[in-house]
Amino acid sequence: MSWNTFGRVLRFTTWGESHGPALGAVVDGCPPRIALSEADIQPYLDARKPGQNRFTTQRQEADLVRILSGTFEGQTTGTPISLMIENTDQRSKDYSEIAKAYRPGHADYAYDAKYGIRDYRGGGRSSARETAARVAAGAVARLVIPEVKITAYVCEIGGDAIDRNAIDYAEIGNNPFFCPDASAAKRWEEMVDTARKAGSSLGAVVECVAEGVPAGWGAPVYAKLDSDLASGMMSINAVKGVEIGDGFEAARLTGEQNADPMRPAEPGSNEGKPRFTANHAGGIAGGISTGQPVVCRVAFKPTSSILTPVDSITADGEATQVRTKGRHDPCVGIRGTPVVEAMMALVLADHKLLHRAQVG
Amino acid sequence: MSWNTFGRVLRFTTWGESHGPALGAVVDGCPPRIALSEADIQPYLDARKPGQNRFTTQRQEADLVRILSGTFEGQTTGTPISLMIENTDQRSKDYSEIAKAYRPGHADYAYDAKYGIRDYRGGGRSSARETAARVAAGAVARLVIPEVKITAYVCEIGGDAIDRNAIDYAEIGNNPFFCPDASAAKRWEEMVDTARKAGSSLGAVVECVAEGVPAGWGAPVYAKLDSDLASGMMSINAVKGVEIGDGFEAARLTGEQNADPMRPAEPGSNEGKPRFTANHAGGIAGGISTGQPVVCRVAFKPTSSILTPVDSITADGEATQVRTKGRHDPCVGIRGTPVVEAMMALVLADHKLLHRAQVG
Amino acid sequence: MSWNTFGRVLRFTTWGESHGPALGAVVDGCPPRIALSEADIQPYLDARKPGQNRFTTQRQEADLVRILSGTFEGQTTGTPISLMIENTDQRSKDYSEIAKAYRPGHADYAYDAKYGIRDYRGGGRSSARETAARVAAGAVARLVIPEVKITAYVCEIGGDAIDRNAIDYAEIGNNPFFCPDASAAKRWEEMVDTARKAGSSLGAVVECVAEGVPAGWGAPVYAKLDSDLASGMMSINAVKGVEIGDGFEAARLTGEQNADPMRPAEPGSNEGKPRFTANHAGGIAGGISTGQPVVCRVAFKPTSSILTPVDSITADGEATQVRTKGRHDPCVGIRGTPVVEAMMALVLADHKLLHRAQVG
Amino acid sequence: MSWNTFGRVLRFTTWGESHGPALGAVVDGCPPRIALSEADIQPYLDARKPGQNRFTTQRQEADLVRILSGTFEGQTTGTPISLMIENTDQRSKDYSEIAKAYRPGHADYAYDAKYGIRDYRGGGRSSARETAARVAAGAVARLVIPEVKITAYVCEIGGDAIDRNAIDYAEIGNNPFFCPDASAAKRWEEMVDTARKAGSSLGAVVECVAEGVPAGWGAPVYAKLDSDLASGMMSINAVKGVEIGDGFEAARLTGEQNADPMRPAEPGSNEGKPRFTANHAGGIAGGISTGQPVVCRVAFKPTSSILTPVDSITADGEATQVRTKGRHDPCVGIRGTPVVEAMMALVLADHKLLHRAQVG
Repeated sequence: MSWNTFGRVLRFTTWGESHGPALGAVVDGCPPRIALSEADIQPYLDARKPGQNRFTTQRQEADLVRILSGTFEGQTTGTPISLMIENTDQRSKDYSEIAKAYRPGHADYAYDAKYGIRDYRGGGRSSARETAARVAAGAVARLVIPEVKITAYVCEIGGDAIDRNAIDYAEIGNNPFFCPDASAAKRWEEMVDTARKAGSSLGAVVECVAEGVPAGWGAPVYAKLDSDLASGMMSINAVKGVEIGDGFEAARLTGEQNADPMRPAEPGSNEGKPRFTANHAGGIAGGISTGQPVVCRVAFKPTSSILTPVDSITADGEATQVRTKGRHDPCVGIRGTPVVEAMMALVLADHKLLHRAQVG
Repeated sequence: MSWNTFGRVLRFTTWGESHGPALGAVVDGCPPRIALSEADIQPYLDARKPGQNRFTTQRQEADLVRILSGTFEGQTTGTPISLMIENTDQRSKDYSEIAKAYRPGHADYAYDAKYGIRDYRGGGRSSARETAARVAAGAVARLVIPEVKITAYVCEIGGDAIDRNAIDYAEIGNNPFFCPDASAAKRWEEMVDTARKAGSSLGAVVECVAEGVPAGWGAPVYAKLDSDLASGMMSINAVKGVEIGDGFEAARLTGEQNADPMRPAEPGSNEGKPRFTANHAGGIAGGISTGQPVVCRVAFKPTSSILTPVDSITADGEATQVRTKGRHDPCVGIRGTPVVEAMMALVLADHKLLHRAQVG
Repeated sequence: MSWNTFGRVLRFTTWGESHGPALGAVVDGCPPRIALSEADIQPYLDARKPGQNRFTTQRQEADLVRILSGTFEGQTTGTPISLMIENTDQRSKDYSEIAKAYRPGHADYAYDAKYGIRDYRGGGRSSARETAARVAAGAVARLVIPEVKITAYVCEIGGDAIDRNAIDYAEIGNNPFFCPDASAAKRWEEMVDTARKAGSSLGAVVECVAEGVPAGWGAPVYAKLDSDLASGMMSINAVKGVEIGDGFEAARLTGEQNADPMRPAEPGSNEGKPRFTANHAGGIAGGISTGQPVVCRVAFKPTSSILTPVDSITADGEATQVRTKGRHDPCVGIRGTPVVEAMMALVLADHKLLHRAQVG
Repeated sequence: MSWNTFGRVLRFTTWGESHGPALGAVVDGCPPRIALSEADIQPYLDARKPGQNRFTTQRQEADLVRILSGTFEGQTTGTPISLMIENTDQRSKDYSEIAKAYRPGHADYAYDAKYGIRDYRGGGRSSARETAARVAAGAVARLVIPEVKITAYVCEIGGDAIDRNAIDYAEIGNNPFFCPDASAAKRWEEMVDTARKAGSSLGAVVECVAEGVPAGWGAPVYAKLDSDLASGMMSINAVKGVEIGDGFEAARLTGEQNADPMRPAEPGSNEGKPRFTANHAGGIAGGISTGQPVVCRVAFKPTSSILTPVDSITADGEATQVRTKGRHDPCVGIRGTPVVEAMMALVLADHKLLHRAQVG
């Protein structure tokens, strides 16, 4: 089946293929009387946009968003917000090769096995271009949670991790990798360049921190805040793993090491909320936010499109080999960073509204 | 908000608290004319049941399931299947301590912050006893997908991993750890015993493999098979991370290393389906099953209940310390294993039905 | 398919068959800290309960409800509320006749055509006993909307309508027909008695008025307040029609006749809200409540179980005739009245929470 | 809240305002490999289109639909189908009057009470222009159920009903009223003309018959086929009542009169299915189709826009009067007919897929 809607109260539906005329999102359930114009959305699309430097795909897309409904005189009205992004660089290249052979690691074979038909141009619906639509939706979601500050960054490329003591959010915008550690960014430049020139690709890990989330968001037990984050993040193209807080590392700790002690609020600070002296849990306990920063980590596999020929089969079941010459991202995790931020915003905004539905 | 239903076509709803009179699940959307009796469910509850050996909590629960609706003369009728498990060992102990102080790492504070009220007896709704209900639901789901064989096992405790070359499914039932590697099981016996005696706890990683899943299950892009698995697994108590296939390891590979080449089916075998020569993807591409085994890995944090005092606060915001003397699992990941299997079954059964809804 | 959940934020799921061990409802999403005990629910079940007078079925059911989860020390906790009602009068009668022949007007044939199996005892899942579960759920919903007063009554039996000028809510409890017009109740006594003795049956119309609903509840355009009411009411056994406000009569009016003029609030009254001088719309415009009383009317067909033989076929397709001797309601609309009230409460409570989710 | 999605497996979401740049629908869950182009949709939009004769609003809209996603080489791919219709005749008239005063009977006041903001141009989201989007979605749904033939017609205008013995489907396209009775159409011409000239309006009743629905569609008990039809029909602008089969008339019959007897299939006919000798039930029993024609009747109130001044208030609560001079339908039920057909198609297609999900 096809299931292109996400969220429970703040719901968004995306549509569109890589090489169709356009793609878009319909955001439903957004509170009314929020100032919203294209200018609130465009910067996030620009951050995700391809072709901005040599480390990403050279496809040229303006990714200009247009609001087709749901606002009046610059404010949301509470009705569905339709966002559309036209595809402009559907290069009229020859797709006959992809049409016939399954690209290993891509969704080609799976889509054919499922639907018996497949828009093979650029991956069709399975293309990461879909994420432009959710980045647009995410920009709307951000306006629903002005109290929250979301920051995502690449913390690892090809196994080379940042120095956690060197994290400086101000650095994130200073390099083409969304890297908060200037010296890691330097190393990655060479790594990604080498991979790019060799027609190879690299995996990456993206970390996302949401500050300002109050205690109490989350819907146990099947819409836990972490469950919904896991679902949202895993739905991003090329993602193979999701961690909350210490994640898999927590499985290697003892109970003592993993404890998040609590202390009373200091006088006059923090509105009487408890002070945690550690955050192994990543800001979520029992599926509900604790008031600490919500921390999530997402693993992106290396792009499957590589120059080295890989064994494959044709749609007719004949042996063949596939090598990808065209434009593509040597490390999809990089441009995945704004997408991770968007999903964090969408999940949190949904849970803010869910929380006030039940608790007021 | 509270959100206790999971699934899209095969939906189940769980209810019940740790120390209430009972807990249960209502399974809706199950196909008719499937042979079903309590005997089909009980073995899975028995596998999860507490108090079976010294490595799990000493709470004594028979965990006997009763089918209250949805079957007639031993067959499902297509109507909702109500499953109930009575709580029998709600030890009349004194909960005044938990009532007042927040147990660090538990959901106590988060529930109070959210709801302003909390059934503090044994964790109430946030207790892992809820997983008994989903194990029961999972047993029904298994009957919906007889073509699939699901096997989960603990592959790591406290950082000590099994030898992947020594995996022998036949060993899983031979030790109290659901461990497929006999010599790892031996080591873990001492590790867990030491932790238990010290009132400490250990984390664990559970791996789950589903064989026989045909190509084509999964609902892109917001009900991808892997998204739903991530959501379902992350909703299990104490889980902090989920991986599909190589997971975070994939982020450290190059595109060449991570490739899953395809070869034509060998004559006379596999009904003409392609043969993959690797499975880094864990059987899922573009959110859709590929026909390879579906592989998922789940990280359980160490139990938060430990004997060592941890700083905390009272409900009134006063400083205190909490140490847990009572019965609890020194390594929750162990008894989490049948729960992981159940969630795998529930997600796959839902997607089998979703697939035939759209594609027939 | 089977779909036994209703609601969007305040969701309830019912389960159970006419002659199974029990039936019940799980109410999810209820706000926390609402005082709730069995005593809040039982009176509504008692009002619906069979066997209370000669005008309803003689099946004897205590219909005692038990709360199995979701409350703590007499208050809701925000977790799912499981309600169970045991069946006690599953008379061990011989069902072999129903097992073989389809009762015309009942769901027997349709269930068999759909599921290929059917619990024929008393209609199984298609029995109106299911409505006991929603009456219990509705009692919880009422506590979520204390500002609303819901009153349902029978306004017509067998084509004999009440005098609208004689409506006196105080009369509703004074007769076995939930009739607000004492003289109509008198007439109906004879009508229903005659039908009962003849083994015949009568249809009825139930009207339901909700006072105190503030302006603003309703979720355009596919969860309009009237759409959800229509869905909820039509799901009640034997219901064949639903009207909001003037309903079908509105289709016979001109725009002038159907107008609901508005006047400014009178000084010092009604908190500045407008005053409507008519209510043809039944309190709903554009799917959103206007602050006027919400008015809904529901048509119940006559019970299909009658003494006169009706042509039918057996499960094997052979010609037969069916006449129903057993206990049944000669006019199901009567006992449908508390069910209509419950559905009104459930829809309104859901929309109160939905409204505050989006608008705060 | 805003809730603009309908359906469970075949889901569609609509967006757009009366005077925004465009409106549209996203249809999700449609089976793959169905031939689909704009030409399959346009005729249904043309049937609903305004400005075609003097009996409907004079707004001029081409209502040209464009498919933006979900098809490839003329076939559906199983991915979301995005349909867009641009608004072309958003006459730049002066809306200052509507902006200030609430039009009685319209959703103006309710939207303001709910959202605190309102796109007053032509009713914004509450305008019946939204129904263009669902007519487009409905055209896709029809392709999912080629076995079903859906026919809707106006059976009553202003209280003047057709002669049921004179129903001739061939007549429906021969008059501007979708009237199957030629002589009634003649009478209505004068009636509607008189109302139009007087600036008055008339209500109408639309009947819809679906032939070819097999027995077994419907999802008891909260997605019964009739519940979903009631919900879908009631969500259409100006609808105040829904009936299935005999509807309210059934409430006036005895059990004997209301019986739908069954006879064995005649040899060689009807594939062994039973033959019903009456259809009071409208083809649905227990929420499941019986194989008879599904019959639904829908009451449309008279258009609230009339020339006669009606008492109202301004947004500031001051007394005023409103009279509507502009273009509008004197009888909205007429153009509601293609919308009723579309909703019937959407509900049936959803239930066809739901049925095969559970039963195969």
